[in-house]
Amino acid sequence: MRFSRQMKTVEEALQELLARLQKLDEEQVELGEAYGRILAHDVIATCDMPPFDRSPLDGFAVKAADTVHAAVDQPVYLRVVETVAAGQVPRIPVDPGCATRIMTGAMMPAGADAVIMFEQTENPGVHSEVVGIKRALRPGENLSRRGEEIAQGTVVAHAGERVNAGTIAVLATFGYSQVSVIRKPRVGLLSTGIELVAVDEPLAPGKIRNSNTAMLAALITEAGGIPVLFPVLPDELAEAKQKMTGYVREVDLLISSGGVSVGDYDVIASLADEPEVTLLFNRIAMRPGSPTTGLLMSGKPVLALSGNPGACFVGYELFARPALQCLAGKKQVSLEPIKAQLGSPYEKPCPHPRYLRGRLLQKDGVLIAQPDFNDKAGNLGTLKNSECLIVIPAGGRGKQAGELVDVIVHAQPSWREEV
Amino acid sequence: MRFSRQMKTVEEALQELLARLQKLDEEQVELGEAYGRILAHDVIATCDMPPFDRSPLDGFAVKAADTVHAAVDQPVYLRVVETVAAGQVPRIPVDPGCATRIMTGAMMPAGADAVIMFEQTENPGVHSEVVGIKRALRPGENLSRRGEEIAQGTVVAHAGERVNAGTIAVLATFGYSQVSVIRKPRVGLLSTGIELVAVDEPLAPGKIRNSNTAMLAALITEAGGIPVLFPVLPDELAEAKQKMTGYVREVDLLISSGGVSVGDYDVIASLADEPEVTLLFNRIAMRPGSPTTGLLMSGKPVLALSGNPGACFVGYELFARPALQCLAGKKQVSLEPIKAQLGSPYEKPCPHPRYLRGRLLQKDGVLIAQPDFNDKAGNLGTLKNSECLIVIPAGGRGKQAGELVDVIVHAQPSWREEV
Repeated sequence: MRFSRQMKTVEEALQELLARLQKLDEEQVELGEAYGRILAHDVIATCDMPPFDRSPLDGFAVKAADTVHAAVDQPVYLRVVETVAAGQVPRIPVDPGCATRIMTGAMMPAGADAVIMFEQTENPGVHSEVVGIKRALRPGENLSRRGEEIAQGTVVAHAGERVNAGTIAVLATFGYSQVSVIRKPRVGLLSTGIELVAVDEPLAPGKIRNSNTAMLAALITEAGGIPVLFPVLPDELAEAKQKMTGYVREVDLLISSGGVSVGDYDVIASLADEPEVTLLFNRIAMRPGSPTTGLLMSGKPVLALSGNPGACFVGYELFARPALQCLAGKKQVSLEPIKAQLGSPYEKPCPHPRYLRGRLLQKDGVLIAQPDFNDKAGNLGTLKNSECLIVIPAGGRGKQAGELVDVIVHAQPSWREEV
Repeated sequence: MRFSRQMKTVEEALQELLARLQKLDEEQVELGEAYGRILAHDVIATCDMPPFDRSPLDGFAVKAADTVHAAVDQPVYLRVVETVAAGQVPRIPVDPGCATRIMTGAMMPAGADAVIMFEQTENPGVHSEVVGIKRALRPGENLSRRGEEIAQGTVVAHAGERVNAGTIAVLATFGYSQVSVIRKPRVGLLSTGIELVAVDEPLAPGKIRNSNTAMLAALITEAGGIPVLFPVLPDELAEAKQKMTGYVREVDLLISSGGVSVGDYDVIASLADEPEVTLLFNRIAMRPGSPTTGLLMSGKPVLALSGNPGACFVGYELFARPALQCLAGKKQVSLEPIKAQLGSPYEKPCPHPRYLRGRLLQKDGVLIAQPDFNDKAGNLGTLKNSECLIVIPAGGRGKQAGELVDVIVHAQPSWREEV
């Protein structure tokens, strides 16, 4: 199989992988732990919001009819019958000729149908038994009606949504001190290759430090997963197969890096030929990372990324990120490219689409995608600057600066200006 | 002071606050804990990268001069003297007429100056003592030179940078198992107002649940801070002052919500008049959130946000987010607006700039900022959809659809299509 692999497009390979993944179970968490999690169910408003008619400002609740003739130089004087703070329940109705001193968020007294702010009354800094109203009000003016923003029973957040700070505000308001969320996916991580030494080990000749596992663990954590770290895989096929068969049982998805190409010791590539293993894909029409491999072992999906850091990163963004969204129950997972103008020409010929790391800039409201030219598969110094993958279609001509290209965004753009 | 406040612009108020904040101390963390933290120092490459001349692919290391006459139909045959896996040190130099079978990432043998990939040799799947080279190579072709990406001593990440997965890869590669990062800021949180009940309490008439504290705690965690939750502040001035004087000692920044306006029980507003308290600002030319207040208590900065959830959110984004960046040691903190086309007309007259929550969309490479029209200060149902603040300048005419507006982005755009 090693030199006669069947080629698939990125989209075909991704669908092969996603078809093997299922939404995970749900679990209950405290509201304070819900940030970043995925909602398992729609969230319903448990009451109207606001829950009662209330004042949106500090002032006086009045009958609008009493203020018809009020003006700056001709105030209408009303008798103040009560002061109501937010959280208090008014006791005295507002009769004609009367007003209630009322604070922001306080419940409206019966009989009042409008609120005038302190600043539009006489001597706003002085407490008095009479207030001079300096402006006419319309009925309903400065009044927040019960349920005007959200009616009880409304769906205020949907299953599959990621909980952010605004979601937390909604959940808190409606009394959800516990939240049903999708369980965090357990993602196994392993590397292959005897050239790898641990981060805290000294470099020996011919060796490099294992940077992929640390990088992938960070990416998985960022995506809401739990990285489960396994030892470096042995090069020997039978032993590797036995280890991996054990590992997949412990996780929802196993991600490896290295060993996917045509080298003599590329153990993942050998694994694809084993009878107990189902091959999903091992040759993708893309640069970098064309030997990125998908397998099923004991029914569990294995995503085998290139060992080259640059290709490993791109493979993660194209396959692992959507896979984690799929496990989290997101509907219709796809790469969803947006359009941007290419910031610099990219003319390197390539028989397959290139997925270039880059940055998203903007100039006068126009999106500009600036490729990173430090794009050799083995390089890693500029992975930290990547905000998107810029898709350069197959063919010898590439794309000129200013042409629209597809861009798959994976990080908050920095909108940096430098090109 | 309550009804005679001095107005400042958002930028003036922000600078008043930032001038009181200092970069926090550093601490050492394990690499696995460094994600999301801010680097305290520049990070230096501890070796060349690659650390040795190596092969970027699986194939044969050769002398290019030996391949000058090679062609698909006229292979040049070389004697295979050794196989070198990644991680091994070659023992045998490549003499004229010889080749070394070499794997991706493996150290180049002495004497070789180019690598041909398996696929460009005869019978690539077969191991043999002789290899047929089917293409002429240039000296240096398919060879990654020691230090070609990064020279030892290069600064590979800068003090003040946020550590992302790519930074982790660089740190791992250069052996940084411990990283110096800026200490996480401790941010105190408190609410004011007797109308507030806890999330797990039942609603009584006139009461609402405290959603701001939970929301702000999530925002602070997201920004890399540690939220420190204090009880709801009493309305009584002397007691409130005493409590807050204690609270500020425990934190780097204290954030409150509510009590900043002109209401009778607005205790933060009263605090601004106390002799031990230094007022930085308490009236800002902005909607919503104009009474957003900055104070110094015992030399510690206090940011007092509006109690209205919408105004609280906007105040956090305009003032607290930059304040946290400042504590983290980010240089030249500012709001850094970008430009986008306004997606829908916004014509509500306003004497001050409006900061509208909204979404960032794109169409054919053009950025579109779509305002959220659920923008009453007291509303909270759509805070979760906010990706940016759209700045509508002061004045009665607003902005028309398609006009360029300033946009302050605070979340990863979803690039949703719906308008």
